[in-house]
Amino acid sequence: MSVPLSPTTRSTLTRKKDRAARDRADLYGVLDEALVCHVGLVLHGSPVVLPTGYGRDGDTLYFHGSTGSGNLRAAASRVDVCVTVTILDGIVYARSLNNHSMNYRCAVIHGRARPVTEAAEKLHGLRVVTDHLAPGSWEHAREVSAKELAAVSVLALDLAEASVKVRSGEPIDEPEDLEHGTAWAGVLPVHTTFGAPAPATYVPADMPLPAHVTERGNGVSPEPVR
Amino acid sequence: MSVPLSPTTRSTLTRKKDRAARDRADLYGVLDEALVCHVGLVLHGSPVVLPTGYGRDGDTLYFHGSTGSGNLRAAASRVDVCVTVTILDGIVYARSLNNHSMNYRCAVIHGRARPVTEAAEKLHGLRVVTDHLAPGSWEHAREVSAKELAAVSVLALDLAEASVKVRSGEPIDEPEDLEHGTAWAGVLPVHTTFGAPAPATYVPADMPLPAHVTERGNGVSPEPVR
Repeated sequence: MSVPLSPTTRSTLTRKKDRAARDRADLYGVLDEALVCHVGLVLHGSPVVLPTGYGRDGDTLYFHGSTGSGNLRAAASRVDVCVTVTILDGIVYARSLNNHSMNYRCAVIHGRARPVTEAAEKLHGLRVVTDHLAPGSWEHAREVSAKELAAVSVLALDLAEASVKVRSGEPIDEPEDLEHGTAWAGVLPVHTTFGAPAPATYVPADMPLPAHVTERGNGVSPEPVR
Repeated sequence: MSVPLSPTTRSTLTRKKDRAARDRADLYGVLDEALVCHVGLVLHGSPVVLPTGYGRDGDTLYFHGSTGSGNLRAAASRVDVCVTVTILDGIVYARSLNNHSMNYRCAVIHGRARPVTEAAEKLHGLRVVTDHLAPGSWEHAREVSAKELAAVSVLALDLAEASVKVRSGEPIDEPEDLEHGTAWAGVLPVHTTFGAPAPATYVPADMPLPAHVTERGNGVSPEPVR
């Protein structure tokens, strides 16, 4: 069943409304494929935008950082935040310079982040982030100690107020350029891919690469549907 | 000659100061390699973060959009903006979950964008953006008409107040994990690459791909120095 996105004033597109995705599934798709989000908040009167990792569990976005981070402390203080996740799918070459564009999928979430303080949910939030960024590591690596857990801040952001904007497909040229234009037009796809894993110097040379690392080699960015 | 970045309060890192890059060359490197920036501003009291293309000319960042865009109009009204450009270089797997990290390079620019209104500089700004996103198109595609130029907003942002943060290299594990740990640790590189160009349906089937498009096939993201 497709659950519509909640269009508040902030989350309603004012331009290119035809590019608005309508379904929660579109939101989940963008969030689950990308690796990094950009968190925006107002600090001492000025906007600040910083990248961070995240993970999604249902309609909750978890992200985390050090308790020593001023920006994270600000984000945890129940101020408005805007979390934006962008996937660039292609460079769109048109016959006219003016119709050059980019294919992308972009999710924008508005809300107030909730600091996760209860130990069990904090661990759960860390697991959600780990499963997103380094799937398999939660089972493979040394677990989080109580001391380490205390030194990390975990924030939860509800995905209630969100919008997704998508541009896909070929260039859109002017009628005059379609008729008389001679320039090449088309899409140059952009992919995010993983390279060959590089073991740390302190890992024994004969240690085989674990499957959860090698299995990512296929890449995270499947050919976008055009 | 290396020109230091200008450390105002906003552009001085408060954490992980060892990750601060010191040179303008680092700033230029990040801006010239990435394709998309995230622009943050305060709109009706709330932070808003949106992706857009850009280009750099010396110490000026140009970006553009439709005159119909409310967010762009707001950005052009001399309010504070924060422009962040992030390149993800790798997923860092440590022996402990807590030391998992990401390798990245991130440039953060604070300032007030200047609306470019004079026609010659407006065209120049568009050229800078085009040369960054679709190099070669300025010479190849149909030029911008006077009407099209009037319908586009071009903004210029001075790169005076900027910081660059970099995390590179292998994981950093705790002494106890170095000694007793058994988990794999290392870096899984992340790359941005271009796929095979897909011509628009209205381009003649026998039209050869122009060199400025095929030459990008080598990818934009060289193996990061570790």
